[in-house]
Amino acid sequence: MSTGWFRRRFLPGGPLPGPRPPRPRTSPLPYRRPRFLRGSGSCSSTADTPRRPEARPVRCPARGRALPWNAGYAEIINAEKSEFNEDQAACGKLCIRRFEFGVEEDQEWLNLCPEEFLTGHYWALFDGHGGPAAAILAANTLHSCLRQQLEAIVEGMVATQPPMHLSGHCVCPSDPQFVEEKGIRTEDLVIGALESAFQECDEVIGRELEASGQVGGCTALVAVSLQGKLYVANAGDSRAILVRRDEVRPLSSEFTPETERQRIQQLAFVYPELLAGEFTRLEFPRRLKGDDLGQKVLFRDHHMSGWSYKRVEKSDLKYPLIQGQGRQARLLGTLAVSRGLGDHQLRVLDTNIQLKPFLLSVPEVTVLDVDQLELQEDDVIVMATDGLWDVLSNEQVAQLVRSFLPGNREDPHRFSELAQMLIHSTQGKDDGPTGEGQVSYDDISVFVIPLYSQRQGSSNH
Amino acid sequence: MSTGWFRRRFLPGGPLPGPRPPRPRTSPLPYRRPRFLRGSGSCSSTADTPRRPEARPVRCPARGRALPWNAGYAEIINAEKSEFNEDQAACGKLCIRRFEFGVEEDQEWLNLCPEEFLTGHYWALFDGHGGPAAAILAANTLHSCLRQQLEAIVEGMVATQPPMHLSGHCVCPSDPQFVEEKGIRTEDLVIGALESAFQECDEVIGRELEASGQVGGCTALVAVSLQGKLYVANAGDSRAILVRRDEVRPLSSEFTPETERQRIQQLAFVYPELLAGEFTRLEFPRRLKGDDLGQKVLFRDHHMSGWSYKRVEKSDLKYPLIQGQGRQARLLGTLAVSRGLGDHQLRVLDTNIQLKPFLLSVPEVTVLDVDQLELQEDDVIVMATDGLWDVLSNEQVAQLVRSFLPGNREDPHRFSELAQMLIHSTQGKDDGPTGEGQVSYDDISVFVIPLYSQRQGSSNH
Repeated sequence: MSTGWFRRRFLPGGPLPGPRPPRPRTSPLPYRRPRFLRGSGSCSSTADTPRRPEARPVRCPARGRALPWNAGYAEIINAEKSEFNEDQAACGKLCIRRFEFGVEEDQEWLNLCPEEFLTGHYWALFDGHGGPAAAILAANTLHSCLRQQLEAIVEGMVATQPPMHLSGHCVCPSDPQFVEEKGIRTEDLVIGALESAFQECDEVIGRELEASGQVGGCTALVAVSLQGKLYVANAGDSRAILVRRDEVRPLSSEFTPETERQRIQQLAFVYPELLAGEFTRLEFPRRLKGDDLGQKVLFRDHHMSGWSYKRVEKSDLKYPLIQGQGRQARLLGTLAVSRGLGDHQLRVLDTNIQLKPFLLSVPEVTVLDVDQLELQEDDVIVMATDGLWDVLSNEQVAQLVRSFLPGNREDPHRFSELAQMLIHSTQGKDDGPTGEGQVSYDDISVFVIPLYSQRQGSSNH
Repeated sequence: MSTGWFRRRFLPGGPLPGPRPPRPRTSPLPYRRPRFLRGSGSCSSTADTPRRPEARPVRCPARGRALPWNAGYAEIINAEKSEFNEDQAACGKLCIRRFEFGVEEDQEWLNLCPEEFLTGHYWALFDGHGGPAAAILAANTLHSCLRQQLEAIVEGMVATQPPMHLSGHCVCPSDPQFVEEKGIRTEDLVIGALESAFQECDEVIGRELEASGQVGGCTALVAVSLQGKLYVANAGDSRAILVRRDEVRPLSSEFTPETERQRIQQLAFVYPELLAGEFTRLEFPRRLKGDDLGQKVLFRDHHMSGWSYKRVEKSDLKYPLIQGQGRQARLLGTLAVSRGLGDHQLRVLDTNIQLKPFLLSVPEVTVLDVDQLELQEDDVIVMATDGLWDVLSNEQVAQLVRSFLPGNREDPHRFSELAQMLIHSTQGKDDGPTGEGQVSYDDISVFVIPLYSQRQGSSNH
C-alpha cells in the first residue's frame, strides 16, 4: 500500500485514482467443501450419538485419506442458519523452491532452481460471512501467496541470521552488526512473510469478488510448521491452543470490535467522515435514549482504557460505532470481527458507509518453538472456528483431549475421532464430559494437529 | 479533544480555528527543586562514598521531613550535562472532597461539601527535556488535575459498582445489568481519571509554556494509592517495579519510539504530510546509502511485526522517522520518548516538521491490588527515571533492596538511605553488590515506597 492510498480509497475529496482497465466478468465461485473431504460422507463417531432429534451430521475426511502429520479434522454445518457451511479449510505440504543468485549483477539476479528446497506444512481455517465466496477464495489462494512470499526470502531464511541484503552482497562491513542490534531472527522473516501473504491474499479476494460480482468476507487462522517452529497467524475470532499433559497455552488471540475498540475509535477520531454523521465513536454501557440527554453517563473514548462520565449531548444518541459486548459486539451494527479477508464492498445497510477502512487483513503471529518443547505422545494443537469456543473453554477442550487420546493410541484415525468428539460436545450432549450440555448453532470446523514425532518431518533442509 | 481537532491543529489546509484571545505574557518559570527537598543539603550516605573524583552529590529530603508513607527519595544531577536537574518530583496526600446532589433536578445539581471525603497518596517523577519548564509545571499541576478528575466521579467510586448515571437517577431499570455486562469496576473510573488528568495537564502545560515563551517536555510516572489499590500511570521511559522477597514485578512499561514504532508509522501512513517529504516512515536495520539503491534490503512498515525485504528506491534514502535502537532510538532524529507532557512547539531542527502529533500524553495505567497481597515487612515499590534503569536491571535493583532493608529495620530513614544507595550503585562503584561498576551520566530520581502496614492509611472512607 502506497502513501496516501488510504485516503484515495476511502475518503471523499482526495485525488482520484487513475482509471482502471476493465476486467472481464468472471463467473461466480461454486459452493464447495474442502478438497480433502472428497469421498467422505458423514462420520460414524466412536463418541455417543447426540440425543437431540435435530442433530446435524458431522463430516470428516474419508478413512484412508491422511492429512499432513496425520492431523484430524471434522466439521458441522449450522443447518438452522443456512444449507451452506460458511467455514472452509485447507491443509497440505508447503514446497518452497530455491532461487539462486545470478553471476552478474546487472543481469536478472535470480535463476529458478526447480527442485524443492525447504518443506513446511500448512493448516488453515476460514470462517466466512456474507456468503461462502471469500472463504473459498482464501482456501484456494492463501497458501500460494505464502509460498511465493517464502520463496522470495528463502535465502535469508536459511542463513544463520537474516542478511541485510538478500543478494548476499554486503555493502557495509558493519551490516551484520546492525542486524544483530535490531535482534532480527529467521523467524521474523517468516512472520513478515505471513503478514504480507495475508495482505496479498486480501487484495486477490477483492479483485476476484469484484470481477465475479460476489460479496463476503472471512476470518483466517493459519498454522505453518517450518524449520522446527510452528507459526500461528490469526486474523479474526477463530482460536488455536496447545494442549499438553500439564499445560494449556493459547496460540492466538481474537480480533473483534470489542478487543480492537481503541484502534477502531482512533481511526474514527482522525477520520470522522468515515462515520458520515450517522454513528458516534464513543462507547457507552448501553445505547443512549432521549431520557439520557443532559445526564452524566459512563463513557470511554479512543484514548481511554478506563471509564469516565460525560454529560449526554444530542450527538451521543447516534448509533454507536461499536455496540454490544462479547458475542453480540458489532462494528457499525454490521460485523462481529475486526480482522479478516474480503469485505471490500461491505457497507452499512441502506447507507454509503464502508466497513473496510476499519478492518485489518494483517494477522497476529505467534511462534511456538517446537524443537525446544519436550514433546509427549498426546501433545496436540487444536484449531477451531468460533462456534467451538463459544461453548467450550480452553480448559474444557484440554480435558476432552486428555480424556480421549491416551485410551486410543492404537487408532490411526484418533485425531479425526477427537475432532468429531469435540464437535459432538457442542451439540447439547448433557452427559458429556463437560456435563453442561451447551449448544452451538454456528458452523464449526476443527483441526487436531499432533506434534509428537513430527519434528523430523518439518524440514528436509 | 473534539472531532477534527487533530487535523485543524497539525495539518495544512484544514479549516482554521477561530482567533484566540490574546493572553497576558507571563514570566518564565524559575528553576527549582522538589518542595520536599527544602532545607536539605547533600546526603551523607551510609553506603560507601563513591571513589570517582568527579562524583556528584546525591540529594535527599532533610532528616525529620517525612514523605507520605515514610517513603524514601534521592536524586542526582548530571553535572556533566547541565547545572540544572531536568528531573522533578512531587508527592503528597490527595484529599478528595465530596459533592452532593441537589434536591431539584433543574437547579445546579452539585453542592460542595467542604470536608475531605476520601484520602489517597501521590508520588510522581517527571523527567524533563529541552529545559526544566515542562517538568516543573507538571510537578506543580498534575496532582491538581487528578484531584479534580477524582472529585468529579467520587460518587461513582464509592458505589459497589459505578452507576450508569452519576446522579444516581436511574433512567433505565436494566442499567446495573449493562454496567455489569461491560465489566466496569471502580478501578476503571480511577484509570479513566488518571488518563484524563494527564491529558488536561498536557493542555495546561501547552498554554503556560506558550504564555511564558518557554519550551520543553517531560515524561511522567505517577503512583497513586486509593481505596486499597495502587495505580501506576506511566507516559515515557521512567519505570516502577514491585520488589518483594520472592518476586520482582514490573508495574509499568516504557514508551519510546522503538516500543511504539507501529503506532507512529501508522500515523505517518495515514498522514504522510506530517513528514513533509523529509523523512521515510519505513524502518531499516541501518540508515541506507546511495550504494544500497536497487538492492533488496531488510525493512518493516507499520503493519508488520516481522521483517521482509524490499528493493531500495531513492525515497528510502531519506532520514528515517525512527532511527537507532535501544537508548539511541530517536523520533524524527529529535526525541527519545514517544509519550509525555509538553513539547507543543517542538520542531525538527531547521524545519517546520512538528513532533507533537506523534506524541501521546495519555499514560498506561497498571493496578496493583495491595489488599490482596500478603505483604511482608520489606515489600517496596521502586520508581525511578531512566538513568537508573540504564545501568541497573530490575533484578539488580531487587538484589540491592533485599540486601539493604532487612539489616536496617530500626533506621527511620532507611528508605531514603536505600534510594541513595541505588543511585550510588550507578556511579561506577566497582565494588558494589552488582560488581559491574557501570556508570550513568543522566539525571536520576528515585522514590522507594514501603507497602507494609500502610493499608489502613490508604483510605479513611
